[in-house]
Amino acid sequence: MSDELLYHVDGELVPTNEATVSVDDRGFRYGDAAFETLRAYGGTIFGWEAHVERLERTCDALSLEHGLSTADLRERVRETLAANDLADAYVRLSITRGVQPGKLTPQSDVEPTVVVYVKPLPRGGVDGESVWDGPATVQSVETRRVPDAAIPAGAKTHNYLNGILARTELEDDADEALLRDIDGNVAEGATSNLFFVRDGVLHTPTADGDLLAGITRSVVLEVAGEAGVPVEEGEYELEDVLEAEEAFLTNRTWELRPVAELDRAEIGGGKVTERLSRRYDERVEEVCY
Amino acid sequence: MSDELLYHVDGELVPTNEATVSVDDRGFRYGDAAFETLRAYGGTIFGWEAHVERLERTCDALSLEHGLSTADLRERVRETLAANDLADAYVRLSITRGVQPGKLTPQSDVEPTVVVYVKPLPRGGVDGESVWDGPATVQSVETRRVPDAAIPAGAKTHNYLNGILARTELEDDADEALLRDIDGNVAEGATSNLFFVRDGVLHTPTADGDLLAGITRSVVLEVAGEAGVPVEEGEYELEDVLEAEEAFLTNRTWELRPVAELDRAEIGGGKVTERLSRRYDERVEEVCY
Repeated sequence: MSDELLYHVDGELVPTNEATVSVDDRGFRYGDAAFETLRAYGGTIFGWEAHVERLERTCDALSLEHGLSTADLRERVRETLAANDLADAYVRLSITRGVQPGKLTPQSDVEPTVVVYVKPLPRGGVDGESVWDGPATVQSVETRRVPDAAIPAGAKTHNYLNGILARTELEDDADEALLRDIDGNVAEGATSNLFFVRDGVLHTPTADGDLLAGITRSVVLEVAGEAGVPVEEGEYELEDVLEAEEAFLTNRTWELRPVAELDRAEIGGGKVTERLSRRYDERVEEVCY
Repeated sequence: MSDELLYHVDGELVPTNEATVSVDDRGFRYGDAAFETLRAYGGTIFGWEAHVERLERTCDALSLEHGLSTADLRERVRETLAANDLADAYVRLSITRGVQPGKLTPQSDVEPTVVVYVKPLPRGGVDGESVWDGPATVQSVETRRVPDAAIPAGAKTHNYLNGILARTELEDDADEALLRDIDGNVAEGATSNLFFVRDGVLHTPTADGDLLAGITRSVVLEVAGEAGVPVEEGEYELEDVLEAEEAFLTNRTWELRPVAELDRAEIGGGKVTERLSRRYDERVEEVCY
């Protein structure tokens, strides 16, 4: 199946095995690129505007002036979904600084490389199924989250070794790494944001810290507000999470995924997680289907 | 000229404009790759063993078991130089984790992507010329060096945004960024190590700090020892460098490059810089030509 997929590379739809970039592309040489992970539900990209805004914030952080309009990007995504006859899909949109003369210092004259990746996903929404097989088994790791002072925390880039190193620390059946910041505060998962419930209050590490505040995280905060669930964004230690009644992770493809265990201590989902998950599905259903 | 060069990609010599990698290569998606910048003088790679050792340390840090022998890598470099009829050249050797099923978590079964880049350079050694046009104009930047706790400092990887962000801060005619660590100590340049001379003592930030201790840095420390120049590796603030009598940067292609100015304050090279530079050239001449 995957061999039959088409990716969108620099304006052309090409089979995945012919989808390539130059080895001189700065996205390859340096990870000098911005990306977004999107999810299409019934042909509609959920939260497109929020994704494009974040993509622009990332590009601003990298001083990457790609010169492409939102409509152009949207059209590339649309074409890719259409060419693959996909309505429910994972979509990754990457923009690199392309090939430039010289070495490390970026030049302002950019011919960006734009890649749209797709992969089929099950239907979402209220009648949908989860993309994950079961709740997450989470392990806190020694690798610390790259601080904002080194690379802007809100930038979603192809420099993803921090998360990879965190994942390589995982033992046994753990499938997500929980990173702390340099000061030891809980930050985020390698590819997810963390929420936990204590005394009926929904907690999540503050976006003022060293973490990438996901768009799914924002939606969860919104639906929690609508559902009357009290929310606190703060600074937390691992112990705070370990004492939680419920915990879950969020990202665009997982949506809300309960945390079965953290560091071998059982936590699990629960009523709040289920309620927010249902509200999230309703939102998706309403907006996309 | 550059269009006529051949790169070595996955065992094949290909013209640069056909030298590509899959958009699914982890080197492109995540910067999940190790590399070395080498310099060939008269057909000989200077410090090959040291480079291979560091490459292996980087791969160990990334848990990247590429399965390639040193002889194999050496042969790819040799073939690339021969195919381009180059004796004096810049060479970049990159090894990525290749394309893998799944997403972020690396799989142990690796089919690495190996790329050898080349570019002609002038002759080096005692009769050689510098690759740089003039001494460096250096500016200290706000971007802080990624700490070792987030990504091992000694790993030379395709995650190079930290240095790119540092370079994008440069104003006017500054051409190298000086990064400090999270605590404010001087670490390194975006692509270079820093040395400075005060009261006849050669100082350089300690390799125990958050910096990539270059192989050229090691050679400079060696030749300084041979020349009887007292050396101190320590923790320094910007002020320490600003009070220096001489300062220079090192990397594989630049060799020793005097610092004309740091933050608009004149420093310049001097007798120690010249002496070490000459000794470095002699070492190159002796080993390679």
